[in-house]
Amino acid sequence: MTAPPLDALLALLALDRLPRTGWLLAGVPAPESIAAHALGTALLALALGPRVAPALDVDRAAALAVLHDAPEALLTDLPRSAVECLPEGAKAEGERRAAQRLLAPLSELALTRFQEYQAGATREARFVHLCDKLHLGLRWLAYRRAGHGTLEEFRGSLERLECAEFAPCAELQRALLAAAGPRAGGEPAR
Amino acid sequence: MTAPPLDALLALLALDRLPRTGWLLAGVPAPESIAAHALGTALLALALGPRVAPALDVDRAAALAVLHDAPEALLTDLPRSAVECLPEGAKAEGERRAAQRLLAPLSELALTRFQEYQAGATREARFVHLCDKLHLGLRWLAYRRAGHGTLEEFRGSLERLECAEFAPCAELQRALLAAAGPRAGGEPAR
Amino acid sequence: MTAPPLDALLALLALDRLPRTGWLLAGVPAPESIAAHALGTALLALALGPRVAPALDVDRAAALAVLHDAPEALLTDLPRSAVECLPEGAKAEGERRAAQRLLAPLSELALTRFQEYQAGATREARFVHLCDKLHLGLRWLAYRRAGHGTLEEFRGSLERLECAEFAPCAELQRALLAAAGPRAGGEPAR
Amino acid sequence: MTAPPLDALLALLALDRLPRTGWLLAGVPAPESIAAHALGTALLALALGPRVAPALDVDRAAALAVLHDAPEALLTDLPRSAVECLPEGAKAEGERRAAQRLLAPLSELALTRFQEYQAGATREARFVHLCDKLHLGLRWLAYRRAGHGTLEEFRGSLERLECAEFAPCAELQRALLAAAGPRAGGEPAR
Amino acid sequence: MTAPPLDALLALLALDRLPRTGWLLAGVPAPESIAAHALGTALLALALGPRVAPALDVDRAAALAVLHDAPEALLTDLPRSAVECLPEGAKAEGERRAAQRLLAPLSELALTRFQEYQAGATREARFVHLCDKLHLGLRWLAYRRAGHGTLEEFRGSLERLECAEFAPCAELQRALLAAAGPRAGGEPAR
Amino acid sequence: MTAPPLDALLALLALDRLPRTGWLLAGVPAPESIAAHALGTALLALALGPRVAPALDVDRAAALAVLHDAPEALLTDLPRSAVECLPEGAKAEGERRAAQRLLAPLSELALTRFQEYQAGATREARFVHLCDKLHLGLRWLAYRRAGHGTLEEFRGSLERLECAEFAPCAELQRALLAAAGPRAGGEPAR
Repeated sequence: MTAPPLDALLALLALDRLPRTGWLLAGVPAPESIAAHALGTALLALALGPRVAPALDVDRAAALAVLHDAPEALLTDLPRSAVECLPEGAKAEGERRAAQRLLAPLSELALTRFQEYQAGATREARFVHLCDKLHLGLRWLAYRRAGHGTLEEFRGSLERLECAEFAPCAELQRALLAAAGPRAGGEPAR
Repeated sequence: MTAPPLDALLALLALDRLPRTGWLLAGVPAPESIAAHALGTALLALALGPRVAPALDVDRAAALAVLHDAPEALLTDLPRSAVECLPEGAKAEGERRAAQRLLAPLSELALTRFQEYQAGATREARFVHLCDKLHLGLRWLAYRRAGHGTLEEFRGSLERLECAEFAPCAELQRALLAAAGPRAGGEPAR
Repeated sequence: MTAPPLDALLALLALDRLPRTGWLLAGVPAPESIAAHALGTALLALALGPRVAPALDVDRAAALAVLHDAPEALLTDLPRSAVECLPEGAKAEGERRAAQRLLAPLSELALTRFQEYQAGATREARFVHLCDKLHLGLRWLAYRRAGHGTLEEFRGSLERLECAEFAPCAELQRALLAAAGPRAGGEPAR
Repeated sequence: MTAPPLDALLALLALDRLPRTGWLLAGVPAPESIAAHALGTALLALALGPRVAPALDVDRAAALAVLHDAPEALLTDLPRSAVECLPEGAKAEGERRAAQRLLAPLSELALTRFQEYQAGATREARFVHLCDKLHLGLRWLAYRRAGHGTLEEFRGSLERLECAEFAPCAELQRALLAAAGPRAGGEPAR
Repeated sequence: MTAPPLDALLALLALDRLPRTGWLLAGVPAPESIAAHALGTALLALALGPRVAPALDVDRAAALAVLHDAPEALLTDLPRSAVECLPEGAKAEGERRAAQRLLAPLSELALTRFQEYQAGATREARFVHLCDKLHLGLRWLAYRRAGHGTLEEFRGSLERLECAEFAPCAELQRALLAAAGPRAGGEPAR
Repeated sequence: MTAPPLDALLALLALDRLPRTGWLLAGVPAPESIAAHALGTALLALALGPRVAPALDVDRAAALAVLHDAPEALLTDLPRSAVECLPEGAKAEGERRAAQRLLAPLSELALTRFQEYQAGATREARFVHLCDKLHLGLRWLAYRRAGHGTLEEFRGSLERLECAEFAPCAELQRALLAAAGPRAGGEPAR
């Protein structure tokens, strides 16, 4: 048995300090951390997963969600504006290498689960990709209710989300948009 | 199919804002959130779980870790000094009722997984209980290296942790204590 | 003369780091500390106390206000959702024991003043109970003006507050509600 | 009876957001607020006051402590470096005018208590002046134990504090310096 | 050649921790630092400066902007309410002495540039004075869009700003007010 | 004359919220912003620039410093671990495109100055590159003195910095290392 992966475990603690940069750029003062987003995605998978038919392996979906942004402990959360400026494919390549450096020492299972998520070839992986986006929508609803403005671009992302494969995801999408109410007339278009 | 549990999902977002109060009381200025602790516990389960023999259901262990502190979204994180002042058993009773209110609407699976964790009757549940404590030890090591003082009580908890059932846990316990180095002479005993 | 109560004094410093959890759960990003709430309650007692007829002992009321949440340095601020999940009477019992552990070493006077507040048998104690609630209303007004949403439950608490015993308290209650303006149509009902 | 002093009460809420600037300049990342310092000074008066002989009016001392930095809601906390650059006497003049603008509308009692503190002619006022400095010493001890460096100038202030008039104050001064231990060899002299 | 001015350089780092107090008093939770304001003023000078006719020395204007609030590392940012309470001219005198203590050791050029800014006798100095105010307006627009309330006093300052000497400044003033939209009916007048 | 570049100016405000990620990953709780680093680099240029022989255009150097990290308002601050995971040259390409999108609308001068910095062909540009690294060293010294641990990798960067072209830079390098004192025996090697 190999030694415990102390360096990788210490590096992963940074997920609690690293902010989700999209919220920062949109003016949210002390936004959600990457860690909180990953946990929330896993909780969402545990909430919606059991409602999906035919049945998913919900525990594996939770594990995928726990790991889905873990490489950002080395890469940080690159916002859309960064991805647009970096060369085509740079972010995906960065995630691959960061996963290799960080998750391979953790355990072979951890790396395998991350790669399943990234490949998106299983139903569980595609389901967790939707949970990732729906958790963004949930956070948007909460920030909007709490009075944060200038977040309308996040509504657009939620509206355009393609949820047809998983009915409970489509239902939550509708519930989030209904709870948010209509686009405010005075809100800047961004 | 029932409506998506929007209220419970919004309530769970508080895990990102709620601090782990033990660090606050010990003087750590902007400590880890409950969400970050739960995510870290799940990552630890994915790191150590595959090394355990005989094999564990590691995905289910990850799900247990994701849920293990979820009721604190209603209850908040009660530090040791609070538990000592509250009536005997009050905290466990509070967790039970909070889990019922928060996790039952999420999904039957979420509640079942939390109850498995709380009962501690399966190997996976006992393993995640150790991961919970070892993540505290990992955070202690990181805070200590980062220069935070007055955290020696956390070393004591780590030293006293009983890890015999799971060898990889005992190994990480030893690695954490070795990495921390000796108790500083000048450190207050608390 | 006994030694200065250094441990109790150090423990009370935590009141500056411990957040008022009701605001946290309602989505206020970096809310008021318990210390700031206690100071604000004392300032309110010094503002309204001299207007009360027949005259109150305003200095003693200020001392009651300074101490009224001091046990939370051990217990933390238990939000309504926590109180609802804990066994009946657990919070009051927790406060009693925390006061004993923290305030008895401070001074007999400190413990006596806290117990007077908790018993609510004197006019000064009942007056400070109202100042505690009115300071919550004042903070609500300020957060609302600053743009925080989803705080309508705090308006309800203020509206229902029974202020008949102390006319200046009733007057401030009316002034706060008038300054807040009508319930916004679009505000979620929570 | 005059209308409740809503504007003054709202202005005083700023004491929770305004930092004690001496700690900021010394590199403490998220230091104590003015509100927390004022509350701590009042708690210290309630701890040491009953030990003073001949007896003090401890409740009035608590009221003095609650008010002693209230004008800083308009003036902010001017650190030593600011006082050295401003014209002689500017800070005291600023406090006088700020007290007039902020505390006179609060209540005549509030202004009277502040002026008693500022004049320093009563034993209660001089006692609270010492509690103000001793609370600084208490905070210094806590920050030092928590690992903050470069705070040795605060030790010097505590060592030079003249506590002869009130024996319990002198005792706490000795206890704080004893608990801090010797000046570290490697600490920069500042 | 004299030794590098290490003490002055270390003191200037405080500009990152010191908040712009006007935003704090208006209820913005974690407002802009003095450092960020100075950088933003310099960026504004580099944006508008090249559009001014006849041509300005834009590089020197950037240097003036970098230095224009540097003495606040010793003095802190005195809000309007503080200036109104301090004796007439105290703030300007404080800035002069702070500049002498902090910028003279930095370099003769640094002190000269600050004095040029303070005197306001050159076109570059007057231009940077306007950039300072326009950056406040820009920040106000961003905070307003982000949902912060109670900032209408900042609109008034922007409306009253006299920009006639520099056409591109007047244009930005108009653009900021147009982007902010009309004064909200429900906004408190302050 | 074209319209004022309002969108670019609003986007640049993000520099105040975006953290310098190297400090975050090393465990500094609320580290310096990108804006504060850019301002500090400009102040350093104004301090050391006038001491350089033969004379530099110090005002232009200040302008280069103000702009040197401005594209990070779109790109965020990519830490070393991210650069190592991204494809070769991705960061430089990202900066080029971000500068084009953000600085071209600001003014032709702003883009020209940034490109001069990035090319490093002038003495002023090479001098500001050194100021950028020396400001990192200055911040490291301050964090180290304030008690932050685990920052020894930053010492190594400072030791290896090649300052031969500009004597005042070499002098500050020596002064920073002397002020930091010897590498602590107990400090983890990272």
